[in-house]
Parts: sequence; C-alpha cells; structure tokens
Amino acid sequence: MTVILTPPLMTFQPYLDAVSKQINHTTYGEQPTELYEPIRYIMSLGGKRLRPLLTVLAAHLFTDDWRKALKPSVAVEVFHNFTLMHDDIMDQAPLRRGKPTVHEKWNANIAILSGDVMLVNAYELLLETAPQHLPRVIRRFNRTAAEVCEGQQWDMNFELRSDVTQDEYINMIRLKTSVLLGFAMELGAIIGGADDTQAQALYDAGVNMGLGFQLKDDILDVYGDPEKFGKQVGGDIIANKKTFLLIEALQQATGDTQQALNHWLSLPQGTYDTATKVAAVTDIYNQLGIDKIAEANAEAYFAKGFEALEKLPVPKDRKQPLLDFAAYLAGRES
Amino acid sequence: MTVILTPPLMTFQPYLDAVSKQINHTTYGEQPTELYEPIRYIMSLGGKRLRPLLTVLAAHLFTDDWRKALKPSVAVEVFHNFTLMHDDIMDQAPLRRGKPTVHEKWNANIAILSGDVMLVNAYELLLETAPQHLPRVIRRFNRTAAEVCEGQQWDMNFELRSDVTQDEYINMIRLKTSVLLGFAMELGAIIGGADDTQAQALYDAGVNMGLGFQLKDDILDVYGDPEKFGKQVGGDIIANKKTFLLIEALQQATGDTQQALNHWLSLPQGTYDTATKVAAVTDIYNQLGIDKIAEANAEAYFAKGFEALEKLPVPKDRKQPLLDFAAYLAGRES
Repeated sequence: MTVILTPPLMTFQPYLDAVSKQINHTTYGEQPTELYEPIRYIMSLGGKRLRPLLTVLAAHLFTDDWRKALKPSVAVEVFHNFTLMHDDIMDQAPLRRGKPTVHEKWNANIAILSGDVMLVNAYELLLETAPQHLPRVIRRFNRTAAEVCEGQQWDMNFELRSDVTQDEYINMIRLKTSVLLGFAMELGAIIGGADDTQAQALYDAGVNMGLGFQLKDDILDVYGDPEKFGKQVGGDIIANKKTFLLIEALQQATGDTQQALNHWLSLPQGTYDTATKVAAVTDIYNQLGIDKIAEANAEAYFAKGFEALEKLPVPKDRKQPLLDFAAYLAGRES
Repeated sequence: MTVILTPPLMTFQPYLDAVSKQINHTTYGEQPTELYEPIRYIMSLGGKRLRPLLTVLAAHLFTDDWRKALKPSVAVEVFHNFTLMHDDIMDQAPLRRGKPTVHEKWNANIAILSGDVMLVNAYELLLETAPQHLPRVIRRFNRTAAEVCEGQQWDMNFELRSDVTQDEYINMIRLKTSVLLGFAMELGAIIGGADDTQAQALYDAGVNMGLGFQLKDDILDVYGDPEKFGKQVGGDIIANKKTFLLIEALQQATGDTQQALNHWLSLPQGTYDTATKVAAVTDIYNQLGIDKIAEANAEAYFAKGFEALEKLPVPKDRKQPLLDFAAYLAGRES
C-alpha cells in the first residue's frame, strides 16, 4: 500500500446508500421513551457506517443477493453505538460527533440502560440471518462482543500505567476496535455463503484493516487537517493518551528529547498552554520520525488486508467495491 | 391457594443441587481480571437460584433428560445477576445479599463493563440449546431482556411520580421481574420438547408466579421476620418506595389516616426516627387491611400459576417437583 494519489472510485456508494437507508428504517422500541429515545438519538448522529458497509460488501463477494445482509449488518452498527454509549459514560466524554453524549443529554442511568437494550437489539437484528447460520453467527458475535469489552478494560487499565508496550497497545486496539471490523466482514461472508476458510480470511482481512484504521486514527489526531478531521487535533497529546505515537516516542526518545517529552507528560492539566504542548510534542514526534513509523505500520496492516482480499478466489468485479472502500479507508483524511 | 400450613415436600432439592453445581462449574473468562473477577464475585454471592431451577423443572415436565437444560438454565441466572449489577449502579445500592455491590467494591465503570460482558455470557450459555430451538429461544430471550430493561426504566420513572396507579405498578413488576420467571419456564419447556401451546402455558404460569413472588416480596419487606428476611425489614417504607402496599394505602386512605400517611411520606430523610416511621406506616397499613389485600392478590397470582400447571396434560409425578417448588415460593418467609 502506497499513498493514494487519486481518490479511489466510489464504487461502494450504492451499498453505503442501501446501508444508510436500512439504518434509517430500523426501529428499536417505543415505551418508556426514556429508554428508546437515546437509541434513536445516538443512531441519528451519523458516523461513517463503515462496519455495516463492510458486512454488505463482504456478502457481495459471494452472492448477488447481498441485500439479505442489510438487516443483519445493522446489528454491527447498533452494537458499535452501544459500545460508544457505554464508553462515553466511562470516559466522562461530553461530546460525541460534536453533539452531547447520552449521559450528558439525559443522565448516566439512562445511558447504562439504553445501552443495555441496544445490545439486546443487536442480537435481535442478528436473528435476520438464515436459521442454519445462526448458531455460528451468534457464537462469533459473542466472542467479538466480549473481546471489545476486554479491549475497553485494557484501555482503562493502560491509563493508570506508564510502561505500556507497543505489543500490549496493538493487542488492546485489536480487541477494542479491530475484531469488530473482522466480525463485520465475516458476518457478510457467512450470509453470502462463504465456506469456513473464506469466512476466516475475511475476518483476518477485517482485523488487519481495523488495526490500520486505528493507527490512522492515532496519526490523524496529531497530523490531521483541522478542517477535515471531526475531532480536536492534538486531543490525544493534551490528554497524554497512550497511542501508538506516544508509546513509540517514549521508546525511541533519549537524552534531552526524552527529558522534554517526560516534562510535558508530567504537567498537570491546567498548568500549561494546550497549543504549546501540542506543538512541542508534535515537534518531538517529528524529530524522532514517529509519524513515518506510524504511517508505515498503518500501511503494512492495510497491505495485509488488501493481500488477503486479492488472494480470495472470487471474480475481480465482485471485489472492486470492497477494494475501493479499503483504499478509501487507507487514504482517509477524516 | 390458601396458606401453607406444612412446609412443602422438598422434591425439588435434587434439581436445585444440580443447578447449583452447574453454576459453580461455569466459567466466564480470565483476562483482564478487572472484567471477569466481578462476574465470579456476584455469581458467588448466592441467591435462591430459583430462575434456573424453574427452567430445569419445566424441562423435566417433558423429558427424562432434564439435564440437557442445565447449561442453558445458567443463562437465566447470569442474565438476572447482570441486571442486579447494573441496577445496583443506578440505585446507588451499597449492599447486595449483605456484601458490597460491584460498583462499591470496584467502581462504576467496572460494574458497567462487567455487566455488559455478563449479558454476552448469557447469550453464550443459551447456545447450549439444540440448534433447531435456537432462533425461537434467542427471539424470546431478546423480548424478555428488553422488557426487563423497560421495567427498570418504569421503576426509575415512578420514583419521580406520586400518581402511580396499581395497574401501572403491576405492569412494571410484570416487566421488571415476572417475565424472566416466565421465560425461565418457557425455556425449559422448549428444551424439553413442549409444543407451542404448552410452552406458552408455562410462560404464563411463570409470569403469574413472578407477580405473586414480587407481591410477596413487597409484603415481606414490611411484615417479614427480621431473623429470616435477608434485607432490612421496613426498607421500602423508609425509602417511600412505591410498592403494592403503599399504592394501595394511598388509594384507600381518607381523612386523618390519609393526612398521617402523607405526613410520613413528606418528611425529608434524616429528619425522623426510621423505626418510628416504619411502625407508624405499618400501623396505617394494618388499619386499612393492606396486608390482607396484598396477601390475597399474591395468592391469586400464585393460584393462577398453579392452575395452569395442574391443567397441563403431563403425568402427575412429572409435575410434583415443580408444584412443590411453586408451593415453597408461595409460602416462603424469606
């Protein structure tokens, strides 16, 4: 994978439109409104819908009738938003996609309970897969869901530690982020009629793309264009968040650079100018070539994902929308 | 159903022993320990294990091989304990079965996330049912799980209202407590090979027993023997909790009695002697005959449950353990 110089063809757009429409038509329940209104709210905040899109594109590899993956694909998006609703309580996050989080707009109790119902709703949407696939789909979803929770717990544990290694970090983001992209693709493959080997190949491809996706996120948080990036650029630096970049920098830095980095990390919130800290730490990253190391790692994960997709014994034209979407993810600037 | 004068035969004991053993042998996951230790903790606090017992006893109605219901029966107990873990956060409860709650012993974030994994674990345990039953079992469990969350939300809503009717209260406890007892019995019936009509009859019986069970709980909270009742007697009165008894009293009371009751309800926490309040409100209940009305209602629900069980076209000896357990629940003093 090298840098994308031209935007990939948007051959995946019709599938994304179908996914968005399906999400907009999904209902969750009515009464009591305190329970169901937050679900409609968080689902309406948008997002890239990349997980259900991966499900549908993976199904399309194996069947013309990819539309039968639409309803189950929404399960993945609902599950993802359930994790956001609960993570936002744990992280005390005030905003999600620029809007108040559910525990801010309502309260923490409502965010806990609405999230619980969303997890149940995700299982209900998975019931839209054919009965012969159901035991396998539920078993794989259960494993994935537990792993996502494990990833979140590791992430919280890491906040209290200063000796997190790159291997530990990669394992954490694999659990917290990547396995769900892997499951999204595996789900589509199963629905499309893939055999076990093919389904596993798509899972692996999804996990690798997920790792590349998260590293890209870490990079964009520092190097993203504020005009295009949805979040505050430098947010991770201000919060001392242990990202791939910071862990790598802590490992590489020596002498004065090490001292300067540790100095910025040691300052209590509110005792420094945030823009100065972001500029200083970014400068350290640049000196150490952290941006290039991170880019190379992200690209390597995406390349592994691409390779797995290209190896699949499936006609090229069936693959094109998925390959284009993978290229879009790898080259994204927001 | 009249008052039980002699304790029912404990013909259900071997089934309860098998359920307890199965729960003790259930594993939930290992790493990170912060995620899985709270699950082992709350599951080790005990409880009556009445829900999985109902599953196994219902299966026994239809099959000699009731042991195949053991693993799935644990799903119901794990789900129940998941709701306790999350409800305790919402209710800021310090104690559960006399021991610190999970959010007290660890913290709220860990209680949220461990609870989430417990819900996933419940689905994993449901996968132990035969594949041909799985779509139906998952669909019915989803409905039940969503309803239990709805019940909890209504319960929280009712705390902020002073005009809750008895119909609303019964509907709330139906959702929060009874449907899970109904599902527990329906699950056992499905696993045992019952047809749809029989499974529905067991669900209905379970719901009615659940309503009787919760009214009995409301009664025991006021009239229970402190030596036998696990919780503080009078806790609901101190907290102004809108139980069947209080709602009935508010509806029945007139004149001085009404004034006295409203006076006790209006006093802010800490401005009165709790024992005096408990004695005074209990006295009002006695004057109005609330205890007898509540007992009659609890008995009527249990009677409906019994009737449904007795009508089932199943040999009497198959029913005996379940009938004995139902009698035990109806007559319980703790």
